[in-house]
Amino acid sequence: MQDQGLLGELIKNLCCLPGIGPKSAQRMAFQLLQGERLGAEKLANTLLKAIEKIGYCQQCRTLTEEVLCHICSQTSRDQSVLCIVESPADVWVVDQATLFKGVYHVLHGRLSPLDGIGPDELGLDLLEQRFSQGKIKEIILATNATVEGEATAYFIAELAKKHQVQASRIAHGVPMGGELEFIDSGTLSHAFKGRNDMI
Amino acid sequence: MQDQGLLGELIKNLCCLPGIGPKSAQRMAFQLLQGERLGAEKLANTLLKAIEKIGYCQQCRTLTEEVLCHICSQTSRDQSVLCIVESPADVWVVDQATLFKGVYHVLHGRLSPLDGIGPDELGLDLLEQRFSQGKIKEIILATNATVEGEATAYFIAELAKKHQVQASRIAHGVPMGGELEFIDSGTLSHAFKGRNDMI
Repeated sequence: MQDQGLLGELIKNLCCLPGIGPKSAQRMAFQLLQGERLGAEKLANTLLKAIEKIGYCQQCRTLTEEVLCHICSQTSRDQSVLCIVESPADVWVVDQATLFKGVYHVLHGRLSPLDGIGPDELGLDLLEQRFSQGKIKEIILATNATVEGEATAYFIAELAKKHQVQASRIAHGVPMGGELEFIDSGTLSHAFKGRNDMI
Repeated sequence: MQDQGLLGELIKNLCCLPGIGPKSAQRMAFQLLQGERLGAEKLANTLLKAIEKIGYCQQCRTLTEEVLCHICSQTSRDQSVLCIVESPADVWVVDQATLFKGVYHVLHGRLSPLDGIGPDELGLDLLEQRFSQGKIKEIILATNATVEGEATAYFIAELAKKHQVQASRIAHGVPMGGELEFIDSGTLSHAFKGRNDMI
């Protein structure tokens, strides 16, 4: 199909959404312009406002429109326990799934020397600052279970040790509801090594 | 998770996209606000511009930013053959898949008396006007192969007959690559009735 002017441009721009290819983008564009014009306008305006207003929390680096995010500014949260995650999305996931009542620190990535991502790019200086203020007693490393995530966790655990902060790593093993037959050997070997006493 | 202000609002508004639930919307919002701010801004602005500028073609009722869409305004197209489809998306699909070189007419729906959609809601008066101008010699009915789509096709075929316009319906049958074993009986019975001479 030849260039469709504004419609083609809209479809091309919708393709920048994660998981959206040309076909889905086309469907989206048609729906936005047919039944949903009011919703579409609201979406566009909210997006512009969000791009303008939402920045990073000064303390934990998650996305927020305030100076401190709603988690860091909650006085009921235990500021001495820190959960370290790779992305702002992980903050949501951990907060929704667990009863964790401490605060977070967002790395915005993982150590990956080949891509030029070292300790400085992850804001580990800011983390070390938080350690050296002496308020943090414990960190929980909740980076992803990938090679880079593991390496990042080890690096930060060493950093924590230097400042006498206790560091723990979230458990790896068979996911709940998982059947051994279908689990990869890496996970199973992890699950064996990390076995816990029963009763 | 409690209300997240602007971020929560953005996620709620992204849910109005077709096929996007809360989880995908969340992932989209985070990606738009992290790596993709420039693309996100462009998307929002294009969307606003599209909402403002894109209307319906005066002749065929498809989406366009001009008075006449790029298909109706092409002089190389045969204006005496009309393909009738349910939605602007179908115009794209037919134009991409076939060698059709006539023009289109978009119904924006199908006859559905239970939902209060009658001939007037589908702009069939406009279609009849086009018929009575005497320029149209043939119509190809490419409404969906649903009960309502079929009924709409029959209704329009009757209308065409009144104006001595030849009407044909796209073929229904076994899709290319389809195996008989897995085809539903309605389609198979259609395929039998609609069999064509070979050689």
